[in-house]
Amino acid sequence: MVNTIGVIGLGVMGSNIALNMAGKGEQVAVYNYTRDLTDKLMEKSEGQPLSPYYELKDFVQSLEKPRKIFLMVTAGKAVDSVIDSLVPLLEEGDVIMDGGNSHYEDTERRYDRLKAEEIGYLGIGISGGEVGALTGPSIMPGGDLDVYEKAAPILTKIAAQVGNSPCCTYIGPKGAGHFVKMVHNGIEYADMQLIAEAYTFLREKLQLSIDEIADIFETWNQGELKSYLIEITAEILRKKDDRTGGPLIDVILDKTGQKGTGKWTSMQAIDNGIPSSIITESLFARYLSSLKEERVAAEKILAGPAEEEWHLDKNVWIDYVRQALYMGKVCAYAQGFAQYKMTSELYGWNLKLSDIALIFRGGCIIRAEFLNLISEAYNEQPDLSNLLIAPFFAEKLKDYQTGLRKVVCEGISSGISFPALSTALSYYDGYRTGRSNASLLQAQRDYFGAHTYERTDIEGVFHTEWNE
Amino acid sequence: MVNTIGVIGLGVMGSNIALNMAGKGEQVAVYNYTRDLTDKLMEKSEGQPLSPYYELKDFVQSLEKPRKIFLMVTAGKAVDSVIDSLVPLLEEGDVIMDGGNSHYEDTERRYDRLKAEEIGYLGIGISGGEVGALTGPSIMPGGDLDVYEKAAPILTKIAAQVGNSPCCTYIGPKGAGHFVKMVHNGIEYADMQLIAEAYTFLREKLQLSIDEIADIFETWNQGELKSYLIEITAEILRKKDDRTGGPLIDVILDKTGQKGTGKWTSMQAIDNGIPSSIITESLFARYLSSLKEERVAAEKILAGPAEEEWHLDKNVWIDYVRQALYMGKVCAYAQGFAQYKMTSELYGWNLKLSDIALIFRGGCIIRAEFLNLISEAYNEQPDLSNLLIAPFFAEKLKDYQTGLRKVVCEGISSGISFPALSTALSYYDGYRTGRSNASLLQAQRDYFGAHTYERTDIEGVFHTEWNE
Repeated sequence: MVNTIGVIGLGVMGSNIALNMAGKGEQVAVYNYTRDLTDKLMEKSEGQPLSPYYELKDFVQSLEKPRKIFLMVTAGKAVDSVIDSLVPLLEEGDVIMDGGNSHYEDTERRYDRLKAEEIGYLGIGISGGEVGALTGPSIMPGGDLDVYEKAAPILTKIAAQVGNSPCCTYIGPKGAGHFVKMVHNGIEYADMQLIAEAYTFLREKLQLSIDEIADIFETWNQGELKSYLIEITAEILRKKDDRTGGPLIDVILDKTGQKGTGKWTSMQAIDNGIPSSIITESLFARYLSSLKEERVAAEKILAGPAEEEWHLDKNVWIDYVRQALYMGKVCAYAQGFAQYKMTSELYGWNLKLSDIALIFRGGCIIRAEFLNLISEAYNEQPDLSNLLIAPFFAEKLKDYQTGLRKVVCEGISSGISFPALSTALSYYDGYRTGRSNASLLQAQRDYFGAHTYERTDIEGVFHTEWNE
Repeated sequence: MVNTIGVIGLGVMGSNIALNMAGKGEQVAVYNYTRDLTDKLMEKSEGQPLSPYYELKDFVQSLEKPRKIFLMVTAGKAVDSVIDSLVPLLEEGDVIMDGGNSHYEDTERRYDRLKAEEIGYLGIGISGGEVGALTGPSIMPGGDLDVYEKAAPILTKIAAQVGNSPCCTYIGPKGAGHFVKMVHNGIEYADMQLIAEAYTFLREKLQLSIDEIADIFETWNQGELKSYLIEITAEILRKKDDRTGGPLIDVILDKTGQKGTGKWTSMQAIDNGIPSSIITESLFARYLSSLKEERVAAEKILAGPAEEEWHLDKNVWIDYVRQALYMGKVCAYAQGFAQYKMTSELYGWNLKLSDIALIFRGGCIIRAEFLNLISEAYNEQPDLSNLLIAPFFAEKLKDYQTGLRKVVCEGISSGISFPALSTALSYYDGYRTGRSNASLLQAQRDYFGAHTYERTDIEGVFHTEWNE
């Protein structure tokens, strides 16, 4: 038996990737550290071209050369451990692919190690959850281009397809694929938080019913906000709870976790001087949510604003919320793509932002219509410094800022927290401030720490004895 | 000659610490890797009890036992390198103190290493800049308590004094001292940014003259905002430029740097699930400031709100700005002290928040009147979950939220960016939201990733097939 590809790690994601490959005509060898998951997969895949192996050596020997091995094991030490076991069994030119959520710096370390052994290594970002893994995820491969080319026929086949394009493209060297997936997840956090804030406005400020709000999200999903996250939000709001008969969302505990990649996105931005404030504020909103007991206690102690009479025209304000959400998203994506650009320059990765936007259009969690517009913007200007100033978006935000400003102000006056929306606006206004108050910060730093400053009118580095 | 303490590293900070010690009656051995700085210090310290050494061995042998050696070298490899050179020359029970801005995790690593050699190691946070080092800084020592006690007589003597209390107290084990200094710097970033935003409102929105604004800061410095940073801001605004004759601040380039500790504060918070959003937003404001060329270009492209007629009553609004600044500061300090509390619990450090507030009252950059109130709050309730709900502050913010809400809203309507003030308000309102929209985030995560959720009404972990 000669298998065309092997998959190691048969949890839900790994099993689904293997089934996806088999469904596309590949002859797939599968292996798991423990026997139970292998057996479980074999049971449900009867009749499909999957072959189980219970010894790693047999698994490896069953593969056509150059061997292509896809790892779908938990990020962290398990990846190193599998690589340790594989290396003695492989030959020059074989390819290991890590499809898990590995930190891109770990991927770079593993890449360097395997490079020395002349084994190809691809760090592959995969987005789409369980369903995407089975039916077609968005795939972000990083590593050597010639190594990618060995795996490309399979990867492009199992990826989501939008029109005739696979949502898979070579991203860049070494850890670039996992990096792009990491920031994708950061953008996802921001997107989710912005939607949650729009929902809050409709529910608490406009006091619409859950069904009215579901209707609104459905309508939005037919326009320029069309996206997977908007779509599922409408479905979520429709869902009734079997136990109470009311909306299921109303009995879900408001504590949100996170699994690492979003947090890494913020840490990487902070470490490298990149202002990814909306992504980070969305992460902090999750952290604050986890302090549920403190929030419940604080609600009784901390005062809000005095209640005012207000009469908001429902239809006008629903559209303001739509504008606010759209503009918040544009600002969040602008930050995420700026993080790609700045990091690409830092590492010399030569990331193609237009291509990245294209492969996000299908399969992944943040898939959305407006990624076409983002792709076009970077296609027209590959060196665009920031998405905000792309002509289409600059023009759009000129109109939509009204909605965002009104929604945030109304939230502030009513005592409702809109961290991501208001940070998006701070970013927009900060980014278009040619002359900022940072001159005062520099003066303060020079005053107490002799940090020196530059001037606007003449070259040089200056220090002032301020208290003379 | 028997010296009572030795100082290694004679840059400005190290020289001033040595002079401070000598001025307090210590017999100080000084050493620098290169001869020039030693000679320079000796020139300007004539008549004071300083003894220069040009060989590390002579320097060490000149010290009374147990030896106390204070390092003031650049954070990073230089610290390890000096320790490497020192260890063979020391004996059990000797004490090395690192007074630089070392990362607290590096301090923990060095502590462990020296512990094995039975040499005492203290990681000492020092704040106060050059002047503080000479005349009395705020000192935050971490390590073993019995080791601290050997150095305490000198450290408390050279620290700033407030009333009869030295601004020096034992902080906690291992890296706790450097950790407390690190977050101090994060708070400092937020404090500076909040002041800069208050300045912007007065200048751009109320269109006051620089001198009027300097007057306002001077007035504020006589009330509950009294602090070093407010004081120096007034002085900065008064300063005229020799070249142009106008305010110096108006020719200072609006690009701000940072030196690491603020960024570490945000990264530590993010890594450990702590919502330090105001500190982080202040850091991002610095990052955005450094994109000066992009901002200048964007100013011409991105639209602001339509200009509206407005008539703000100057005196009413100056007080709103004061309230906003005060409340912003309380929120920022609440986050910083929550970061202390959460990290202390994580590492079992048993940090005394009341004491930390006390030693910040003098010497350091964030010294301020209202640290007394913070200290009292934690004195009354050592386990206070968050400063915001301390009775004094909860009551104060009940009144001051009006000012903060009005200032942020006015900024938003006018297109002026107030990232730290608006994040402070998001945090305040988020913290007092007992039931939040995080339920929607959890539903989304369960929808696309089967991440499961908890319920508000019954125990357990649940998963829903949302699209059935």
